[in-house]
Amino acid sequence: MKNNPLPRLDENEEIRETLLPHCRLKLGDIWCDPQRKHRVGCLDATNEEHVGQLHEGETASLAIHDPPYNLVAFEERRLHEFIDWCERWVRNSVTHLSKDASLYIWLGADQNNSFQPLPDFIIMMRAIKDVSSRSFITMRNQRGYGTQKNWMAVRQELLYYTKGHPFFSVQYTDIPKILRGYYKEVGGQLTENGERSKSNNIRPGNVWVDIQQVFYRMEENVSGCYAQKPLKCIDRIISASSQRGDLVVDYFAHSGSTLISAERLGRSCFTMDIDPIYCEITIRRLEHFRMTGRLGWQNSHPFEDIISPN
Amino acid sequence: MKNNPLPRLDENEEIRETLLPHCRLKLGDIWCDPQRKHRVGCLDATNEEHVGQLHEGETASLAIHDPPYNLVAFEERRLHEFIDWCERWVRNSVTHLSKDASLYIWLGADQNNSFQPLPDFIIMMRAIKDVSSRSFITMRNQRGYGTQKNWMAVRQELLYYTKGHPFFSVQYTDIPKILRGYYKEVGGQLTENGERSKSNNIRPGNVWVDIQQVFYRMEENVSGCYAQKPLKCIDRIISASSQRGDLVVDYFAHSGSTLISAERLGRSCFTMDIDPIYCEITIRRLEHFRMTGRLGWQNSHPFEDIISPN
Repeated sequence: MKNNPLPRLDENEEIRETLLPHCRLKLGDIWCDPQRKHRVGCLDATNEEHVGQLHEGETASLAIHDPPYNLVAFEERRLHEFIDWCERWVRNSVTHLSKDASLYIWLGADQNNSFQPLPDFIIMMRAIKDVSSRSFITMRNQRGYGTQKNWMAVRQELLYYTKGHPFFSVQYTDIPKILRGYYKEVGGQLTENGERSKSNNIRPGNVWVDIQQVFYRMEENVSGCYAQKPLKCIDRIISASSQRGDLVVDYFAHSGSTLISAERLGRSCFTMDIDPIYCEITIRRLEHFRMTGRLGWQNSHPFEDIISPN
Repeated sequence: MKNNPLPRLDENEEIRETLLPHCRLKLGDIWCDPQRKHRVGCLDATNEEHVGQLHEGETASLAIHDPPYNLVAFEERRLHEFIDWCERWVRNSVTHLSKDASLYIWLGADQNNSFQPLPDFIIMMRAIKDVSSRSFITMRNQRGYGTQKNWMAVRQELLYYTKGHPFFSVQYTDIPKILRGYYKEVGGQLTENGERSKSNNIRPGNVWVDIQQVFYRMEENVSGCYAQKPLKCIDRIISASSQRGDLVVDYFAHSGSTLISAERLGRSCFTMDIDPIYCEITIRRLEHFRMTGRLGWQNSHPFEDIISPN
């Protein structure tokens, strides 16, 4: 395994300066995949024109957004600004959804700051026409940040909204039931759930406990991206809420996971990021996947040609 | 196993009429445990005087509230009324907390009604002086209500707030780690988490997946109570956030689980319910536990002397 990780790209100005000249997109540019119908735009999700340019009239069956959220401390004003900012890209996204479509949004609930912005975001969403709440999903991490004075924090929130009556395909988990001792009659026989759990029909429900967080030993790891979502959860969303050939969008590409997942599952993906570096990572990740079959760079990174191991 | 369940007591007026004459408390009454320091009041949690009468100047180290929430459909007015009602009992509860204390509140997030009342409640809580958000806990149920058109709903929310700097004791779960494939060096050896999971040092974090819902085959079951919380989760809260001899309060006694848990763990409990029937169940459950060592009535119920099997 190579050992050539990048530091967090959002925090290291020197590395950003090194990488920017190698990024093929600048603000306003859109890369159109020559092989399939994907697009990556260096665009601002709150900008109506930008979003219109990305879509070019095509509506999406599914949107998955993972907005960056870096408020360091609770400040009433900044929280309102964040929610206003969210409202702008949410409205842009809803405008470009198909008549029947699904909208998933990753969010946090900061336990040190009165659980913001989750409740504020949910209340803002009530004013958005044409979409309805559908499910509140929590992803349980296997590792958390903890203290001896509190419950260890091991969670990420995912809100699911729908427009019209979208496609939905039930998904199954690959881990067995956790608890024993629940009996149920199946085919005239009393069975214990330890037995029944061997079936392939266990659904993850809206608390996902079977997804490994990305870390440096996993092939899909893209070092430098501090908030990479595991492909397993993106695959699950795309498989549940879209069909082959459908258009999936993601306005905060970051490490490009939605694009990779869409590529593997036979969907098109239009994605954007306001930062040229994440756009470049997203495009390189797709190219790297097509060339090598690999999902990421494990403990190396997308810019090995520019920044080599120490 | 006896087979003599009660129907939901909140929905069956005929059974209520039968049981009410057998309830030893009426609104305003308080039962004081002759053996230990517990109290059960037939009181209104939003009534300042009632709450003052229950406490009689004693402050609690820990409050665990599970407010009833039966709004059938989304109505803006009724949601506001519910939140106003919550604010009143929350303020009463905070008034009677010790300088350093913990406050846990069970709540729902209705996926069919824009996730109410969770976000509304959290925002209301920001106006309550002296308490801070501490952790957002979700309890994953093993069974859910589902459809083929959505993620199965398998969750209950538990908000944890603190006043001052309360006691906290880290709790451990009795189930092993779920996911494999995460390696970590321990004592110079690279170990896989499947191995490490055999240790007793796994914390439940703030997504609890190891708690069986109460159902009719479990000893602790109290039939007729439609929203009974498992003793395992109440035990966990009490063990984490209080010490032996401390006072624990619960203003919505329902099946009396908090009282039973406090009794077993050597804490005092002051609890109340506005409904004389739940007060009677709570007292009978304690008496039944002391007489038989049993935690509930499994598939029978607390009023066998009044309503016998069909």
